[in-house]
Amino acid sequence: MEKSPVPGDTLFMGVDGGGTKCRAVLVDGQKNVIGQGEGGACNAYQSFDKAIDSILVASEKALMEAGLKAGDRDKVVVGMGLAGVNIPDVYTRVWNWQHPFKARFLMTDLHAACVAAHGGSEGAVIVAGTGSCGFAQAGDRVLKLGAHGFPFGDKGSGAWIGLQALQAVLLNFDDLGKPTMLTELIASELKADGLDIIERMHNARTGDYASLAPAVFTAAEAGDSVAIAILREGADYLSDLADRLWSINPPRMSMLGGISHKMKDWMRKDIIERMSPALQQPEHGALFYAMQEYTQSIA
Amino acid sequence: MEKSPVPGDTLFMGVDGGGTKCRAVLVDGQKNVIGQGEGGACNAYQSFDKAIDSILVASEKALMEAGLKAGDRDKVVVGMGLAGVNIPDVYTRVWNWQHPFKARFLMTDLHAACVAAHGGSEGAVIVAGTGSCGFAQAGDRVLKLGAHGFPFGDKGSGAWIGLQALQAVLLNFDDLGKPTMLTELIASELKADGLDIIERMHNARTGDYASLAPAVFTAAEAGDSVAIAILREGADYLSDLADRLWSINPPRMSMLGGISHKMKDWMRKDIIERMSPALQQPEHGALFYAMQEYTQSIA
Repeated sequence: MEKSPVPGDTLFMGVDGGGTKCRAVLVDGQKNVIGQGEGGACNAYQSFDKAIDSILVASEKALMEAGLKAGDRDKVVVGMGLAGVNIPDVYTRVWNWQHPFKARFLMTDLHAACVAAHGGSEGAVIVAGTGSCGFAQAGDRVLKLGAHGFPFGDKGSGAWIGLQALQAVLLNFDDLGKPTMLTELIASELKADGLDIIERMHNARTGDYASLAPAVFTAAEAGDSVAIAILREGADYLSDLADRLWSINPPRMSMLGGISHKMKDWMRKDIIERMSPALQQPEHGALFYAMQEYTQSIA
Repeated sequence: MEKSPVPGDTLFMGVDGGGTKCRAVLVDGQKNVIGQGEGGACNAYQSFDKAIDSILVASEKALMEAGLKAGDRDKVVVGMGLAGVNIPDVYTRVWNWQHPFKARFLMTDLHAACVAAHGGSEGAVIVAGTGSCGFAQAGDRVLKLGAHGFPFGDKGSGAWIGLQALQAVLLNFDDLGKPTMLTELIASELKADGLDIIERMHNARTGDYASLAPAVFTAAEAGDSVAIAILREGADYLSDLADRLWSINPPRMSMLGGISHKMKDWMRKDIIERMSPALQQPEHGALFYAMQEYTQSIA
């Protein structure tokens, strides 16, 4: 067996930071998982301070589970896959953070999810959850699509679907849009109807919009033409996203995220038939990346 | 001449409170304007505290200009036309405010604008500015449309147009939407392009979106199909709004707001030909309402 350039006592950690929570996994030099931890919201675009705090919490919990302490972060080589660092200014800010780890590698949460979905190999992923985005890697070619943020981006996502539904309900309320079952379903979900909806959604966050998406699936399944039109437009976008990702010939493609299963029913069949299941969780993608990059950096 | 039931020393004030600023006009018992004042943003839906503060500032300035002091508010019968009070909970909160005036009458800014536009008589108005809405009064019938708030309402408004433009630019950036001149125009307006736009629009407010609307008019006038489609959709909505307002037979209709002049070019000709110019500013509508209601209340 070839001698590894990495000292046997080096610990590796993978961190997956998303809009809702942050997960950390800690392994020893023999790749045995020795600790895991979870922290809060970790989107550095939405809140830098909160993201850093969540990374520190999740990493400390993982160290504690392994019988270590927070101060042992200086023995850990960490890979971080974080939401928001696709935006250049956000990446720079996170990169300049004076981190407490032995070494640190940074990537988008999407890239980490992609590496994990394909077991450390190349491939592509589409995420349809609260937000939407796509990522593909094939040889030297990398394609990053979407992840533009709500309300101007994230087409086909839960938040986008919720926004379209609210627009349709309010147009219907004024008799300026088509009648739709969504009026009743959204009223029931929000426990408010008509103009009270506006008060209820005042300062609503992305997740609040996404929480309205299930009503749209319900209405569409019952044949409501307004709901069907919303899902068709969103699903067509996701199918187009897949076409663009396939254009650089990734070996595999997976679809991830909270509404991905539901959206598959509305996407093009030829696109869905080519999808493969995700093999691992995103934090393992960040871990794999850290091990690979660190080994190369000291070789 | 019939004896007025209103004591000759009663002062009347009209307040117009909108998303950007608040104007007050003060008249004496003979309807002579004796003072005017301006305050800051006054949308009680967006911020109750700020709206109250702006009313107090504008009313104090109007009193000072008339050689009076803030304490003289207790001699003033005020009519307030405020943005946001179309929402039931917001109306109740403003209504319950322990105001310092002799008497106070409350209406939406839209209703005040309508009364003013038609010189105190009945009629209808469409507003196309940062937001969009419609109001009509004819006999016992009143129709209030739109004013639903951004991002789920306000179709055809400056903020709505700006949001559509950003969506189009970001789709184009990913090669998932049509090429459009808006990419260059919005980049120039924001001094940012591609993913930096996302950072620039982080936590953007309604007015920030509306500030992108002029680029859309520029692109549409130059023949850009994406910009033309945005304005057509917005203008069709405003034309439909006018149709609904005409349905209760108001004697006149006016179109108000920062982008109303530009939007007229894209709306249906038959709708635009029936529009009449607004006769007075909205604060005079609130003033007229206060004088009428107070006179009736003490008669």
